[in-house]
Amino acid sequence: MRQLTSDEIQQIENARDNKVLTSRITSPGAEEVLHKPFHVLDHGMIRLVDYMGDDRAIPQAARISYGQGTKTVRGDEGLIRYLMRHMHTTPFEMVQAKFHVVLPVFSARQWMRHRAGTYNEMSARYSVLDREFYIPDASMLSPQSKTNKQGRDIEVLGPEESARVLDILKGDAARNYDHYLEMINDEEDPGRVGLTRELARTNLPVSIYTQFYWSVNLHNLFHFLRLRADAHAQYEIRVYAQTIIDQIVKPWCPISTKAFEDYSMNAVRFSAGAADMIAAALSGGKTIDPAEFNLGKSEVKELVASFPAIAPYLAAA
Amino acid sequence: MRQLTSDEIQQIENARDNKVLTSRITSPGAEEVLHKPFHVLDHGMIRLVDYMGDDRAIPQAARISYGQGTKTVRGDEGLIRYLMRHMHTTPFEMVQAKFHVVLPVFSARQWMRHRAGTYNEMSARYSVLDREFYIPDASMLSPQSKTNKQGRDIEVLGPEESARVLDILKGDAARNYDHYLEMINDEEDPGRVGLTRELARTNLPVSIYTQFYWSVNLHNLFHFLRLRADAHAQYEIRVYAQTIIDQIVKPWCPISTKAFEDYSMNAVRFSAGAADMIAAALSGGKTIDPAEFNLGKSEVKELVASFPAIAPYLAAA
Amino acid sequence: MRQLTSDEIQQIENARDNKVLTSRITSPGAEEVLHKPFHVLDHGMIRLVDYMGDDRAIPQAARISYGQGTKTVRGDEGLIRYLMRHMHTTPFEMVQAKFHVVLPVFSARQWMRHRAGTYNEMSARYSVLDREFYIPDASMLSPQSKTNKQGRDIEVLGPEESARVLDILKGDAARNYDHYLEMINDEEDPGRVGLTRELARTNLPVSIYTQFYWSVNLHNLFHFLRLRADAHAQYEIRVYAQTIIDQIVKPWCPISTKAFEDYSMNAVRFSAGAADMIAAALSGGKTIDPAEFNLGKSEVKELVASFPAIAPYLAAA
Amino acid sequence: MRQLTSDEIQQIENARDNKVLTSRITSPGAEEVLHKPFHVLDHGMIRLVDYMGDDRAIPQAARISYGQGTKTVRGDEGLIRYLMRHMHTTPFEMVQAKFHVVLPVFSARQWMRHRAGTYNEMSARYSVLDREFYIPDASMLSPQSKTNKQGRDIEVLGPEESARVLDILKGDAARNYDHYLEMINDEEDPGRVGLTRELARTNLPVSIYTQFYWSVNLHNLFHFLRLRADAHAQYEIRVYAQTIIDQIVKPWCPISTKAFEDYSMNAVRFSAGAADMIAAALSGGKTIDPAEFNLGKSEVKELVASFPAIAPYLAAA
Repeated sequence: MRQLTSDEIQQIENARDNKVLTSRITSPGAEEVLHKPFHVLDHGMIRLVDYMGDDRAIPQAARISYGQGTKTVRGDEGLIRYLMRHMHTTPFEMVQAKFHVVLPVFSARQWMRHRAGTYNEMSARYSVLDREFYIPDASMLSPQSKTNKQGRDIEVLGPEESARVLDILKGDAARNYDHYLEMINDEEDPGRVGLTRELARTNLPVSIYTQFYWSVNLHNLFHFLRLRADAHAQYEIRVYAQTIIDQIVKPWCPISTKAFEDYSMNAVRFSAGAADMIAAALSGGKTIDPAEFNLGKSEVKELVASFPAIAPYLAAA
Repeated sequence: MRQLTSDEIQQIENARDNKVLTSRITSPGAEEVLHKPFHVLDHGMIRLVDYMGDDRAIPQAARISYGQGTKTVRGDEGLIRYLMRHMHTTPFEMVQAKFHVVLPVFSARQWMRHRAGTYNEMSARYSVLDREFYIPDASMLSPQSKTNKQGRDIEVLGPEESARVLDILKGDAARNYDHYLEMINDEEDPGRVGLTRELARTNLPVSIYTQFYWSVNLHNLFHFLRLRADAHAQYEIRVYAQTIIDQIVKPWCPISTKAFEDYSMNAVRFSAGAADMIAAALSGGKTIDPAEFNLGKSEVKELVASFPAIAPYLAAA
Repeated sequence: MRQLTSDEIQQIENARDNKVLTSRITSPGAEEVLHKPFHVLDHGMIRLVDYMGDDRAIPQAARISYGQGTKTVRGDEGLIRYLMRHMHTTPFEMVQAKFHVVLPVFSARQWMRHRAGTYNEMSARYSVLDREFYIPDASMLSPQSKTNKQGRDIEVLGPEESARVLDILKGDAARNYDHYLEMINDEEDPGRVGLTRELARTNLPVSIYTQFYWSVNLHNLFHFLRLRADAHAQYEIRVYAQTIIDQIVKPWCPISTKAFEDYSMNAVRFSAGAADMIAAALSGGKTIDPAEFNLGKSEVKELVASFPAIAPYLAAA
Repeated sequence: MRQLTSDEIQQIENARDNKVLTSRITSPGAEEVLHKPFHVLDHGMIRLVDYMGDDRAIPQAARISYGQGTKTVRGDEGLIRYLMRHMHTTPFEMVQAKFHVVLPVFSARQWMRHRAGTYNEMSARYSVLDREFYIPDASMLSPQSKTNKQGRDIEVLGPEESARVLDILKGDAARNYDHYLEMINDEEDPGRVGLTRELARTNLPVSIYTQFYWSVNLHNLFHFLRLRADAHAQYEIRVYAQTIIDQIVKPWCPISTKAFEDYSMNAVRFSAGAADMIAAALSGGKTIDPAEFNLGKSEVKELVASFPAIAPYLAAA
C-alpha cells in the first residue's frame, strides 16, 4: 500500500479511538471497519470514512410509502428482499456512505464516470504528486482477449516478455516522474525558475496514483458494484469493487448486500423471447429452434454462455 | 401539529434515548435536535432523523483537493467561508441530512421540484389518508399581490371576507374527505363494495397533508433553503425552510450556515453593467444615466429595490 | 380532450406547417407526429414538441467508445440491440425528446417523481386554472385489488354504486371549483377583495388538470416507460406511457423501441437461485424443492406468476 | 488540429450537405456552424453535432409556467433576460446541445467532473490510441503563480528553460508512446505475444488526446462555461470553453448568451456585509472600516481586486 505518513496513521487511529455517543442508527459492523484502510493493488487503498443508516433505514423509509401494515405482512428482511427483487430503489437511496480511495488515475477515470455521488479529488494543480505508480504484478500481464474485445486473456505473457514489459513500465514511470520534479523544480535548483505544476504534470502517465473522497447512496453504490465487480470490468477497478463488497458493505448492511447479490448482481435477465423458449423446453419441447422465438445468433450464443442448461434443447445449427 | 400517534411518540422517544458509541463525526448540536418534531403550520412537522458529517467534514474533503498546506494558511472556519464565497460546492456535498416532513400536498409539490436528493413519500394508493387539511390562519388571508405577480399582498382580507373564505375551505375539505371515506367504504357499510383508494383520493383537495422522508446533501439543502426561505416563496413552504435554518442547520453546522447566509442567501448579485454604474457613482459621478450602462428599465427598478443607496445618483426618468 | 383554444390549434398548425431545412439527424417518423396532440383520458393530451437524434445517434455515440471496428462486426441494428441487452445505457442518453403533457395533478405527481429530465409546469400561483377535472369512466371504477395491495381489481362496481361515485366526484369537483373562483373573485364581484390564487387553489382536488413541458433523454424515457406502462402502474398514468410508446417512440426510434421491449420491458429477471432451479428442471429434475435453491415462499409465488412453465416441476407445498 | 482522416472529413461534409425539411425549431446560426470542426490547442477540436431548440424554446417553456399574460408584459428578449437575472433556470434546461470534443486527457478529466450531461468517450481498452500529445506552445510555459495557488504566472520561462521543458515533454511522450506500441505489439512483431491494451495504455502520459461526445442542456452548459471560461480555470480547458461561447453558443442562442454574460458570467456577487459597506460609501461615508461590516481581511482583499472603486473609501490598515 501507499506509504501512509505517520500523520495519516495517527489521524486514522485517533478517529477510530474517538468514540462518542449518538442517537443515530449505528451499525456495529460498520463501526468495526470504519476508518480502517484496506490495501488494494500495489499502492492503493480504500476505507469507509463515514456512513448514514444501515439495513434498518430501508424498511423505515419504505414503510412511510406502504404504510405500517406491511410490518405485519413481512419482517424487515422480507421487505428488503421484496424491494430489491422489484427494483423499488428509493429506500436504498436513504443510506449513505463516504469512502476515501487511493487508486491509479486510469481506474479513477472509470470510477468517476459514475455521476451519481460526490467526489473531492486531489488537485495536481495545487499539490505535487507522490512518486507512486501502479506496476502490475507479473501474474496480471495478459494479452488482449480474443473473445472479449475489451478485456484481457486468462493466459499470461511468458517470463521474458513479462520482464520486458515490467522494465518498460517501471523505467518510463521513473523517468517521467524525475522529469516532472525537474520541471517544477520545487526544491532542487534555486538558480532556475520552475514550470507551473498544472503543465508539468501532463508528463505523468495514467498509472500514477491519485486519491479522492466519494459520497454515494447505497442504491447507486450497488449499481456501481454490479458494473465494476463484474467479470468484464478491468481488474484494476474490480478489486476495489470486490473489497467494498467483502470488507465494507457486507458487515455494514448484510441483509441488503445479500439481497443485492441474489436479485441483482447474480441475477439472470432473459429477453421475452428467451424466456418463452425456456418455457417451451420445460413444457416438453425436445428440439427448439431459436429463430422461432426471434432470437438472433449472438443472443443465442450469449444465452448459452450464461445459461448452459438450455444448450441440449437447441437445434444444431 | 398533526396528532402524533402514541406509537410514533414512543418511537421518537426510543430513538432519542437509544444512545450508542460511534467513531463517526458526531455533532453535539445535531444530537440535541435529532428526531425532535418541530411544529410547522397547523398540522405540519419537520424533524431531522439522521445526518452524516458536520462542519468538520467540509475542510476534510477540501484539503484532499487543495493539500494540507491550506491548513497553515486558513483555519477550518476561514476555509469554509472561502469555499462558500467562491462557490466551491463539492465539499458541502460531503455532508448529508435526512428529514421527515409532514406538509400539505401543494407545498410538497413545490418541495419535490428539487430533484437533488431522495424522497420516500406516503402512497395514497396503499394507505387511507388522515383527515388533516391545511386551513390558513386568518392573518394569512391576503389578496393577490399587485406588484409580485405570483405572490400575496401584505394587507389581509377584512373579517367578513375572511370568515367566508375559511368557511369554504373548511367545509369543502370536510365534505370531500367524508365523501372519500364513503367511496372507499373501508369499514363503514359491509353491504356495498368500495372504490379503489387510488381513485377515491382524486376527490381530495391539495390542502390535505402528506409526508415523506428526504435525504439531501448540504450543498443541495442550502440551494433549497436559498430559494424556499426567500420572500418570493409561498409562505406555506417558507416556514419549513426557515425552521430548517433556525432549528436544525444552525445548531448542526453553525459555521457553514453563517457562511451560507453571508455569501449566498443574503448576498447581492449585480450585473456587469450595474456594478460599473455603482463604481461610477463611487468615483464621483453625480447624476448617472443607467442607459449608458445598458441597464433596461425593469433591471433599474429591481436594482433600486434591492440596493436603495444607488437611487439618489440616478437621473430622473 | 381538453378544449384546445383556437389560439393553441393555430400555433400547432403553424408549427407543423413551418418546415425549414436542417443538417441535423431528422427522423421521418418523428416529423410525422411532431406537435400533434394525442388524446389521453377525458381531457388529457400528450404531444412531442421537439426531439434531438434518432436510432442513428446511438451507434454514432457508441462507436466513439468501441471504435469503427464494430461497424464491420455488427450493423446499426445489431449494435443497438447489443447495447440494450447489455445495459450499456449512455449511448441512449444521446437522444432527447421534449413533450407537452396535459394530465391530472395526481398523475403529474407520479410522473414528476422521475427526477431525470426537466420540467416546466403551469403555476397555480400565477394563473387561474381551467375548469377541467378527471372524472373516470364507469368502466374504470373498480374496488381495491385483493391481491395487489396498491392497485385496483379487474371487476367494476355495480351500476348503482358507480352512479353514486360519479355523482360525488363530479359534484365535489364542480363545487370546489366554483368556490375557487368565488374566492379569487377575479372578475365576479368588484365590491369585494379576492383571495390570493396560491391559497384559493388549495381548495381544488387533485383530479384537476395541470400541464407541463418535459425534456428527457431516451434512456431515462425508457426507464420511465418500463415503470409506468407496467401493469402495476396506475391506469391514469399507464395510458400516457402506452401512448408515448405506440404513437411517438415507435415511429421515431423503431429499432431502439423494439430492443427496449424485447430486452427490458418484457424481459424476465430471475434470481441466481431461480435460474439454478430452472436449470435443474431442464436437466431432468422431475420434482424440485425451491427451498434447496434458497427461494422463499413469496419469491416462488411471484416466479410462478411470471413464469408458469416452472409450476409443474415444483413439489406440492 | 488532430489530422482528421479522410473518412471523417467526408462524414462531416456529408452531414453538412445533407439538408432535409423539419418542423422543429431550427436556428440559422446553429445550422451555420453545425458539424464544423473548430481547432483548439495543437491537436484539439470541438464541434456541435446536434442541438434541440434555441432562444425561442425558453420563453415557450417559461410561459407554460407563468401564463400567456407575460407575453404582453415582456417580449421574448425581456423574458429571457428576466429569467437569467432571477436564476429561473429550468426553461434554459429545455434547450440541448451535443458536442464532439477532441482534447488532452488532463483537460477531459476536468471537463468530466461536470456530472450534468452525458458522455461517450473513446475506450483505450478497445482501441489503440493515436500518437497525438498536447505539447504547449513556448508562450504558455509559465512558472507556478505566486498569488493564485493553483494557477500559472503571467511571465514565461526564459528561452533556455523553455527549450529544456519542451524537450522533456516531447521526448517522454514519444518514448512512452513507442513503448506502448511495442507492448501491445499489434502489428510489429508476429513472433511474440503483445500485452492487453488496457494495461499497455497505463504507460501513456495524461497529455495524450482522447475524444468524447457530450450532450448537455443549455443551463448546465452555461454553468460549465462560467467555471471553465473563468480566468482561474486552466488555460487548456479555458480555450475550449471560450470557443464554445464565441463560435457556437453565440450564433445559436444570441439572446440567452448575452443575458448569461451580463447576469452570470460577468456579474459581481457581494456578500451582505460588502453590499452594506458599498451602500455606506455611496451614502456619504468618507472612510469606512470593513470590520464594522464584519468583513475579514481576505474578503476585503478579494473585494478590492474585483471592485477597485471601493478602495479609496477604505481606512488604511
